[in-house]
Amino acid sequence: MKAAFYEEARRFSVGEKELAPPSQGEVRVKIAYCGICGTDIHVFLGGMEKRTGRHAVIGHECSGVVDEVGEGVFGFQKGDKVVIRPLDYCGACPTCKAGYSHICQNLKFMGVDSEGAFQEFWTVPARTLHRLPEDMDLRDGALVEPLAVACHDVERGEVKPGDKAVVIGGGPIGLLVALAAKRRGAEVLVSEVSRQRLDLAAELGFRTVNPAEDDLESVVADFTGNVGADVTFEVSGTQAGADSITKITRPHGRIVVVAIFGEAPRVDLHKFFWKEYQMRGARVYEEKDFDEAIAFLSEEKEKLRKLVTSVFSLDEIQQAFERIVDGRKEMKVLIRYE
Amino acid sequence: MKAAFYEEARRFSVGEKELAPPSQGEVRVKIAYCGICGTDIHVFLGGMEKRTGRHAVIGHECSGVVDEVGEGVFGFQKGDKVVIRPLDYCGACPTCKAGYSHICQNLKFMGVDSEGAFQEFWTVPARTLHRLPEDMDLRDGALVEPLAVACHDVERGEVKPGDKAVVIGGGPIGLLVALAAKRRGAEVLVSEVSRQRLDLAAELGFRTVNPAEDDLESVVADFTGNVGADVTFEVSGTQAGADSITKITRPHGRIVVVAIFGEAPRVDLHKFFWKEYQMRGARVYEEKDFDEAIAFLSEEKEKLRKLVTSVFSLDEIQQAFERIVDGRKEMKVLIRYE
Repeated sequence: MKAAFYEEARRFSVGEKELAPPSQGEVRVKIAYCGICGTDIHVFLGGMEKRTGRHAVIGHECSGVVDEVGEGVFGFQKGDKVVIRPLDYCGACPTCKAGYSHICQNLKFMGVDSEGAFQEFWTVPARTLHRLPEDMDLRDGALVEPLAVACHDVERGEVKPGDKAVVIGGGPIGLLVALAAKRRGAEVLVSEVSRQRLDLAAELGFRTVNPAEDDLESVVADFTGNVGADVTFEVSGTQAGADSITKITRPHGRIVVVAIFGEAPRVDLHKFFWKEYQMRGARVYEEKDFDEAIAFLSEEKEKLRKLVTSVFSLDEIQQAFERIVDGRKEMKVLIRYE
Repeated sequence: MKAAFYEEARRFSVGEKELAPPSQGEVRVKIAYCGICGTDIHVFLGGMEKRTGRHAVIGHECSGVVDEVGEGVFGFQKGDKVVIRPLDYCGACPTCKAGYSHICQNLKFMGVDSEGAFQEFWTVPARTLHRLPEDMDLRDGALVEPLAVACHDVERGEVKPGDKAVVIGGGPIGLLVALAAKRRGAEVLVSEVSRQRLDLAAELGFRTVNPAEDDLESVVADFTGNVGADVTFEVSGTQAGADSITKITRPHGRIVVVAIFGEAPRVDLHKFFWKEYQMRGARVYEEKDFDEAIAFLSEEKEKLRKLVTSVFSLDEIQQAFERIVDGRKEMKVLIRYE
């Protein structure tokens, strides 16, 4: 079968890889589509070789069809449409035992710490599979994984009907968070500096602000009738974003840290104390977030499809990554197989 | 009557002040004891004149006896032993309406933003009073206010029986937090650099660590069986403390920001995300925290008394403040009246 390999910074190769039968408890999935995540970009730029190694098959935002099931697998059969929750947890560490296996202390994130989906067939533990509805387009299915991230984020933010939510950073995850918050009944303002992303946010029905042009605090004050945001999602990973969270959130409000910060920003802990903020980190997803994401996608395919800006074949994977890195105009880019 | 006035940086005067009758809804309290808080020290050093002005009567950690009640006051009469919850909230702002009047957006902190307790009689709104048990020593009663802070902190930290708690910073509030956490069934480790404070923490029954001498992370690992703290209280207000919170807390653990940070420290938001921490600010107290503090004090007077290291008369207030600022050996210093 065909597979794409991360070889070194800024270089993929595409070549042959042996097709292995699934072992006990495993399922071989014929991949249909796989999205390119920010993490994959980080790998492509050479920043994660310690975890991936070289000549590595990465990728984790995929949809596909069950191709072969190993012994002892229940509930799945050849032909089932599926997505994969790419978390390989130990089940034995204190964090798993406390019920938080998604942030297992020995977690292998599949597609980074072990083999991933940028190959025609991916063999995975059956416990990672979620079934898609029969009528779901597999191209849409590739959005389930990032959408599950967003569902987890709004769960961590305890978003409720009537909440005023601000999302700082309108990239793919930011916009999915905005959509997930809206689905829970929140009114959402998206803060973003890229004109193109702002346009897409507006097209999706959100109020928007460009903090490089307008004063974010004043816009949020106007948006919330001077109360401040009930919940703020920090999805930018910037010092400016970290500065804003303690300025735009209402007293006793919630702040969710979604972004991956490259370095530790300054956080105004005096304001944090003064306004009795509560801030939570939100990483990947739990099983229920995947279920919610699938239901969400079934309801709102049309809107969610707007996030996909390009589709490349597996042979074109090098171009796909270059397009994202150099063009900076893409939102979600998918790889299709066949 | 006699009153002490903050005149300018590092200078109090003691003089006469007119005794006023209580207006409707007010109660005049004859002050018995008043503790000196970190905030008072900050005033003394000249750092809060914008809020206090000069020739100002400050002080807020007091106990006393009802001297005269104004019209329309229910449930209190001359001779009742009381403490005062020094929060003058508006009741009308969105934060008050949301049920968080203790962090009211127009909050006047009595003894800073308005007149305080360093005078023989203090006239206050009846709603700020809490009754002390008849048999309580008024000298002990002066500890209720800082103890209510600690009760609020452990409430915000959702401390539960069996929790392993770490308190960073073993000053008066840090040790009260440790005691309040212990009362809720937690096992507590106190991290502090002052030898004298460490000794007191140990005398109070806590495990201690001096992070300047021993590696805090290793000590916490040992204390928690390599799991990490269930809850960490940041009471030091230092960059070192801010660095530690994301190192010693278990995944999904709670962090409570108690300290008043002079400048915004760096916070490792990547770790925060990675371990899905939850962090909450905790400021002053709610009504129920005062009730809990009074009950707590009734049970554990002996232990709590150990925190009081000196008592000065109102005439000696200048010396009392100088002793704290220059000596740095005091824990809780009280002013007594007569």
